[in-house]
Amino acid sequence: MTHSHSPRIDAFREQRDAYNQVLAKYANAEQKRFFGLDATTYQAGHLDKKTKELLGFVASLVLRCDDCILYHLIESHKAGVKSEELAEAVSIGMLVGGSITIPHVRRAMDIWDKELEGKN
Amino acid sequence: MTHSHSPRIDAFREQRDAYNQVLAKYANAEQKRFFGLDATTYQAGHLDKKTKELLGFVASLVLRCDDCILYHLIESHKAGVKSEELAEAVSIGMLVGGSITIPHVRRAMDIWDKELEGKN
Amino acid sequence: MTHSHSPRIDAFREQRDAYNQVLAKYANAEQKRFFGLDATTYQAGHLDKKTKELLGFVASLVLRCDDCILYHLIESHKAGVKSEELAEAVSIGMLVGGSITIPHVRRAMDIWDKELEGKN
Amino acid sequence: MTHSHSPRIDAFREQRDAYNQVLAKYANAEQKRFFGLDATTYQAGHLDKKTKELLGFVASLVLRCDDCILYHLIESHKAGVKSEELAEAVSIGMLVGGSITIPHVRRAMDIWDKELEGKN
Amino acid sequence: MTHSHSPRIDAFREQRDAYNQVLAKYANAEQKRFFGLDATTYQAGHLDKKTKELLGFVASLVLRCDDCILYHLIESHKAGVKSEELAEAVSIGMLVGGSITIPHVRRAMDIWDKELEGKN
Amino acid sequence: MTHSHSPRIDAFREQRDAYNQVLAKYANAEQKRFFGLDATTYQAGHLDKKTKELLGFVASLVLRCDDCILYHLIESHKAGVKSEELAEAVSIGMLVGGSITIPHVRRAMDIWDKELEGKN
Repeated sequence: MTHSHSPRIDAFREQRDAYNQVLAKYANAEQKRFFGLDATTYQAGHLDKKTKELLGFVASLVLRCDDCILYHLIESHKAGVKSEELAEAVSIGMLVGGSITIPHVRRAMDIWDKELEGKN
Repeated sequence: MTHSHSPRIDAFREQRDAYNQVLAKYANAEQKRFFGLDATTYQAGHLDKKTKELLGFVASLVLRCDDCILYHLIESHKAGVKSEELAEAVSIGMLVGGSITIPHVRRAMDIWDKELEGKN
Repeated sequence: MTHSHSPRIDAFREQRDAYNQVLAKYANAEQKRFFGLDATTYQAGHLDKKTKELLGFVASLVLRCDDCILYHLIESHKAGVKSEELAEAVSIGMLVGGSITIPHVRRAMDIWDKELEGKN
Repeated sequence: MTHSHSPRIDAFREQRDAYNQVLAKYANAEQKRFFGLDATTYQAGHLDKKTKELLGFVASLVLRCDDCILYHLIESHKAGVKSEELAEAVSIGMLVGGSITIPHVRRAMDIWDKELEGKN
Repeated sequence: MTHSHSPRIDAFREQRDAYNQVLAKYANAEQKRFFGLDATTYQAGHLDKKTKELLGFVASLVLRCDDCILYHLIESHKAGVKSEELAEAVSIGMLVGGSITIPHVRRAMDIWDKELEGKN
Repeated sequence: MTHSHSPRIDAFREQRDAYNQVLAKYANAEQKRFFGLDATTYQAGHLDKKTKELLGFVASLVLRCDDCILYHLIESHKAGVKSEELAEAVSIGMLVGGSITIPHVRRAMDIWDKELEGKN
């Protein structure tokens, strides 16, 4: 029931888990170390979790990677990022990365609206 | 009826309008100014509309943004760009941006063929 | 029957063939020369076919073009690339191109697992 | 004298000011609005100045624009970012953007060390 | 004397010619065909020379290749592009490609001002 | 004397070593693990050293990172890559990444000619 308002996020997670099982099957030592780094880099440290997730979000936005954007959007929401804060991070990404980021912003804000913020 | 030959373009526009409503709900002042710029930059000026749309098309092609490509393809068609002119713009984008642009060219030309030029 | 284990690869090829017919309809002389180059560049020469396909694969991975990745994945498999060799090429692409390549690696390895290597 | 420990930053600023005068001479209304946006987007708002500069820094790092990186490095320093915080932002940019960001990180940290942090 | 007002453009051309001799020494058949395409793609056809050079300029700007930008800036000037037209092409490139294009625009406009337009 | 024919490569290495000392001074645990990965990923494994360096070279070429290109050019030369093999790797990078890679190819081949191959 918990998930009833987040069909796209649920689908994203299930697909990602299934993919990760395949990844693990073929990954060599270097890949495993890379995935390990990917997990630890966003842990709270001198910068708090919220800031780190917003940094991951903006980096993903300007590089235009929808799956990466969605991942950090979910984590940003979990870390307590507010809509007004997200909007400012989006402003920076859009300015730096240009109008080609807009389609990604559209998809991100639609999920933020319907499956993250809308659940509160 | 008008739309009966352009199902993908119709779907694109409807989706885009729905997304834009969500965008507007969360957009801050900077985002609104950015969207405003996006609207005025392509208006005819010292360069005509056709040239400006082709510039937007080629920029979108080399940066490989399908939604942006489709948008400027539609606007180029409206502005009177001919197939032979589009082909030359595609040649430039493909040469500058490399073979990774080809999948985007395939999708663009399929829509040009079936939903834009094919309607004439 | 031959195709029964490769539905996504079959769909990719059919779509690609259909697209290429449209491409050919509008392509000018420069585009045709570009497509010609695209066909000859990967032929075995001083570097063998396997190495050339892996070069095409890694270039496509760091530029994050799913269709290009899939194409070179299929050709790498045909050329006899083993899973352990592919994994090392993936390690290099992931390291050079960063974590934004991971979603593309996920999709590539899923097809490698279910529709290429799984057929052997 | 104030500037005696920051020769590269001084040179960067002088060059930038000279360039901006030329920019202003040819800029049309759209460009002026874009430059205006560039100035206001990083002002403190719901996110503080420090966070906004780090977002600009990481976006610039993954897109690999040395001048943009240097600009936000200087502004981050002014806003009070500590070396340990910068290091975490660098970790995220490097992970997301890959090893091709390393030459840019090298140049940035050299300036951070010799002309920003070293002045304290 | 002809060259006395264009030291950077002269240096660019001399360096480019020297480099091209080395390129030719090692180039294989595929590379030579690619260089050939690069030469013919910008010739006037269904689109005039001016439009083609502006397309090459904007593609180079959003991909942030200084040498490519300079090349098409020189050719645009030769083809009769006016400052107001260039400014509109810059507006489109800057909007689509984002603020990371600004340092490239600065360098381009400085050469436009001092070594191209200033010669008229 | 050994170095008398490679001034640019010597300068590159000295600068790189100096930068790396600064990097090490500020690097946190994640960065150190990333640098470690960067060192081990190119070691001979299921793919030989030569192939791995060419993969690194082509990835760097299409992402247009001069320092990365130079590094892998030097390592490719050490690993025994011949001019004809390099030329084929260049062909692939240029085709996939487009004409914007050409300025980088020019600089790479000039160093290959004057400071690597020319030393043999």
